[in-house]
Amino acid sequence: MLGTGSVTLVGGGPGDPGLITVAGRAAIETADVIVTDRLAPLAALAWARPDVEVVDVAKIPGGRSTSQADINQILVEQAKSGRHVVRLKGGDNFVFGRGGEELLACHDAGIQTRVIPGVTSAIAAPALAGIPVTHRGLTQGFTVVSGHVPPGHPESTIDYAALAASGTTIVVLMGVRTLGAICAALVSGGLPADTPAAVVADGSLPSQHVVRATLGTIADTTAGIKPPAVAVIGDVAQIAGLTDGHRA
Amino acid sequence: MLGTGSVTLVGGGPGDPGLITVAGRAAIETADVIVTDRLAPLAALAWARPDVEVVDVAKIPGGRSTSQADINQILVEQAKSGRHVVRLKGGDNFVFGRGGEELLACHDAGIQTRVIPGVTSAIAAPALAGIPVTHRGLTQGFTVVSGHVPPGHPESTIDYAALAASGTTIVVLMGVRTLGAICAALVSGGLPADTPAAVVADGSLPSQHVVRATLGTIADTTAGIKPPAVAVIGDVAQIAGLTDGHRA
Repeated sequence: MLGTGSVTLVGGGPGDPGLITVAGRAAIETADVIVTDRLAPLAALAWARPDVEVVDVAKIPGGRSTSQADINQILVEQAKSGRHVVRLKGGDNFVFGRGGEELLACHDAGIQTRVIPGVTSAIAAPALAGIPVTHRGLTQGFTVVSGHVPPGHPESTIDYAALAASGTTIVVLMGVRTLGAICAALVSGGLPADTPAAVVADGSLPSQHVVRATLGTIADTTAGIKPPAVAVIGDVAQIAGLTDGHRA
Repeated sequence: MLGTGSVTLVGGGPGDPGLITVAGRAAIETADVIVTDRLAPLAALAWARPDVEVVDVAKIPGGRSTSQADINQILVEQAKSGRHVVRLKGGDNFVFGRGGEELLACHDAGIQTRVIPGVTSAIAAPALAGIPVTHRGLTQGFTVVSGHVPPGHPESTIDYAALAASGTTIVVLMGVRTLGAICAALVSGGLPADTPAAVVADGSLPSQHVVRATLGTIADTTAGIKPPAVAVIGDVAQIAGLTDGHRA
């Protein structure tokens, strides 16, 4: 059956199913199999065919999180059996979503693969709270980092002192646990502790809420917040507050 | 009529109308007025009501580009007349799209405003060419800058030497004219000239094409390319080439 199946990587956006793309919705509607996990907008599964098979890789027996190698294998095997496989992720598959690895695995296996980019919560969660990541006169750039590993960790590739001097808005994803260390590293690198900062939790969902503080205080102020949450550091964060509750 | 009209800022994505969100399409379908310009995905106007008024701010008499203050005024006046106004931009309204200014102007005028984030070409154009802006083992972050003003320009807020040391993938939007100066500033800042680099032109459109080179050679190699084009600098750019033509 090789050659008849396919894999489509679909970016599911920040959580509100209205923020999936038109093409992403069409892929979900026609999928034979949807491979998903906790962070994907599961409400979008209502668009799928009644006989769709949903594989939740967060629930596969043998461990809470299936290894990436196992996920790659599921995508390849399902496609090789001739099925149209949708890999549905939260946000965009290529922003800390392992999409590159899945694309390479499918390519190596000769699977026809299609990419449908998504709305990343790195930009959308701040925007829905009224915070533009770029703003004329304030900044001409923004940086998005993963807080999955803290500054100074052997696996970290980010130079936070350099980042502090870059002049860009800094957005931290998956940083609830490491935000204190990241903010400390940025202050250490010379970014003033009174730089505006905000955290947007549950961006785009009815439970969306925003906390405003400064680089020096945001980690303590948001200590009780649960993921998913996006931190924004920079002068643009002072624009927060005008549009709370304006969601898609 | 104050209070009955509204403004919805809709991110139109990189060009393929399939990359507009489901909520963005719904807003277009119900709009009384759509305020748009050259970079918006104009094919999406086919979804609008037959009696919709389309205001192309690139074509208003008196100058090719209407000033931002005039655009703000159009949005506010149309909404004050009781109409549902959609402001349709390419990409995401808050990534170099003046969305923050439009949001503030509408807020100051007491207009009900809604934000529908879009797919940014900063992430989508590379992804559609098979280049993930983040990739496990290569980088845990990416920076998006506007090439609208070159390094060292009085209006530039970006420290390119710091950016060169940040360890993030660097994505340049609106940089066709300034890419040479930006690459030179990054090399000056210590980023090796043999760092992989790619330019994706017309991302998501049938005319999409990709040019691969290095930080030291990409500007010369792409000298003939016309906007819109997105440059990607960093180890992830070496992943290019596996998925050319995989578009939404």
